[in-house]
Amino acid sequence: MISRYAVVETTSIGAGSVVSDFAVVRAGAHIGRGVVLHPHVFVGDGVVLEDGVEVFPGAAIGREPKRAGATARVLSFARSLTIGSNSSIGAHAVIYYDVVIGSETLIGDSASIREQCRIGSRCLISRCVTLNYQVIVGDRTKIMDATHITGKCTIGSDVFISTLVATVNDNQMGKAGFVKEGIRGPEIHDRARIGAGAILLPGVVIGAEAVIASGAVVTKDVAPRSLVMGVPARVLRQF
Amino acid sequence: MISRYAVVETTSIGAGSVVSDFAVVRAGAHIGRGVVLHPHVFVGDGVVLEDGVEVFPGAAIGREPKRAGATARVLSFARSLTIGSNSSIGAHAVIYYDVVIGSETLIGDSASIREQCRIGSRCLISRCVTLNYQVIVGDRTKIMDATHITGKCTIGSDVFISTLVATVNDNQMGKAGFVKEGIRGPEIHDRARIGAGAILLPGVVIGAEAVIASGAVVTKDVAPRSLVMGVPARVLRQF
Amino acid sequence: MISRYAVVETTSIGAGSVVSDFAVVRAGAHIGRGVVLHPHVFVGDGVVLEDGVEVFPGAAIGREPKRAGATARVLSFARSLTIGSNSSIGAHAVIYYDVVIGSETLIGDSASIREQCRIGSRCLISRCVTLNYQVIVGDRTKIMDATHITGKCTIGSDVFISTLVATVNDNQMGKAGFVKEGIRGPEIHDRARIGAGAILLPGVVIGAEAVIASGAVVTKDVAPRSLVMGVPARVLRQF
Repeated sequence: MISRYAVVETTSIGAGSVVSDFAVVRAGAHIGRGVVLHPHVFVGDGVVLEDGVEVFPGAAIGREPKRAGATARVLSFARSLTIGSNSSIGAHAVIYYDVVIGSETLIGDSASIREQCRIGSRCLISRCVTLNYQVIVGDRTKIMDATHITGKCTIGSDVFISTLVATVNDNQMGKAGFVKEGIRGPEIHDRARIGAGAILLPGVVIGAEAVIASGAVVTKDVAPRSLVMGVPARVLRQF
Repeated sequence: MISRYAVVETTSIGAGSVVSDFAVVRAGAHIGRGVVLHPHVFVGDGVVLEDGVEVFPGAAIGREPKRAGATARVLSFARSLTIGSNSSIGAHAVIYYDVVIGSETLIGDSASIREQCRIGSRCLISRCVTLNYQVIVGDRTKIMDATHITGKCTIGSDVFISTLVATVNDNQMGKAGFVKEGIRGPEIHDRARIGAGAILLPGVVIGAEAVIASGAVVTKDVAPRSLVMGVPARVLRQF
Repeated sequence: MISRYAVVETTSIGAGSVVSDFAVVRAGAHIGRGVVLHPHVFVGDGVVLEDGVEVFPGAAIGREPKRAGATARVLSFARSLTIGSNSSIGAHAVIYYDVVIGSETLIGDSASIREQCRIGSRCLISRCVTLNYQVIVGDRTKIMDATHITGKCTIGSDVFISTLVATVNDNQMGKAGFVKEGIRGPEIHDRARIGAGAILLPGVVIGAEAVIASGAVVTKDVAPRSLVMGVPARVLRQF
């Protein structure tokens, strides 16, 4: 069912799909079967939405990265974007080009997934979360509201990251300009759990099953199966 | 005044209301008198907007909760939603079904109000704030930008919660899956004030008129009329 | 190239500009040459977009401040708004009236720039950042994702503010109502660098080139070229 108030330039739309009022689907997009596009959704050329994907009002899927005067990093990206079957994209979420998202993953309202991110299946990337460029996320990982995942961060499977967690990748805080070699995102291993409001400094490695207490400021690596707490974070116990 | 570029399926629109270009109003919605819907607004079926409500560009009112593979909680909701007279809803805000908002309350741009929330009158729920499911808020309470209110949190009247405050409701950080009995949101009593960047752990009770300093990590209950500070928070004085 | 599915009420559009599907441009707006308006963009009357500006999907440029029952401050603003040449405005960003933005500045997705803000050239105001009312920002300053800049904050040139930083301007946390004289935003001087998750209390002055460590809670002024750290922040060294 395609609204007569939608602009649909592609012919590749599977059976049972819905394109609602004022949605825009560009030529070259591929829409699977049983896909639902709510009102005011934008889908760019080259985007692939697999069967059963649902996209809530105002989401923009297929945005080019933009370099302004102030952006130090040179941007490169492939003009492709795949969202796996039965995943859903929240209202006003923005998915950039050169992204692959697995199946049954939920992207929250107003979340942002930047270029060259790879997200597994059955993940929950909650409301207003940012995944900056080149972030890798495994399967069944949950990242809660308003958390910021910095560029080049790698996150394993079955990880839990609570709300308002900050991660950074540049020890110089921009002072040196963008020096590619100096940029190291945190590395968060399988089944680690990060508490609300924690801060992870550049390049720290959080071992498997480690637990970071709420509000901790993590300045160095955390061994697997250890609990750290405080500002700066210290080991409280191993388990 | 209804734009000829809007899709309006309801006939229940009061005198003096404005529906702007590319807005969508579904059948069964009830729009009072003097309501203003800016461009690109979505209003779902069953939504009631009382007299004088103003809805800014791109807001989506009436969104169904969505359960993906990664969501542990089973979702249930009533397909109703009432926004009281003279309240306003910010640009790109998202209001889920099964929500009641009082009169003269302001919901900020990009805020999110989830299913089964109840918000009083003359409140300010500021920009990018999330109220997760089953949150209760009294009257004249202010919650500032980007603060995250977790599911099942209860908040009294005349409360002030500053910016970037984190609240959580699950001591296990998702480890046990979703166990309904284990989920306890914080309880914030009348006239309490919570400083910027504070973190409230699951189930803590913040007494009436208590003051939580900026950056405090609150791990246990705070008595009425006391000031706490630090990581973890300790009582500095009572008043 | 103006989409036949756009509503364009102004006649002042320069050569080579693009207005995409379902965009709305009100009468009295002035659009320069080579401007690109993506789908679902809103541009209000009186807005000036200089040559080469790009506006991503769903952004709303020209929003009136709204006073609800809960807003203590009386709002005043000029109905003008200028965005300098080659700047870009992210998807779902909201720019209020009475704002001036310089050239080659990038405003991120879902950012909010409130009334009476002045932003220089070649700045990066990243995703979900709020600049509340009457904020002044110099040139080449970067403010990273989800950071909250409070009303009446002044920020110099070449400043770096990391992600999820909180700034506040009211020591009373709303207790006294809005007393104009009691409101003092922080003052951040040229080349200062503020770490992730830091909190700046009302009226603190951050000296030129000072460095605030991640997670610091800054309760008093910081001298130029000094490094502070901790909760509350203490001087670690000067340089």
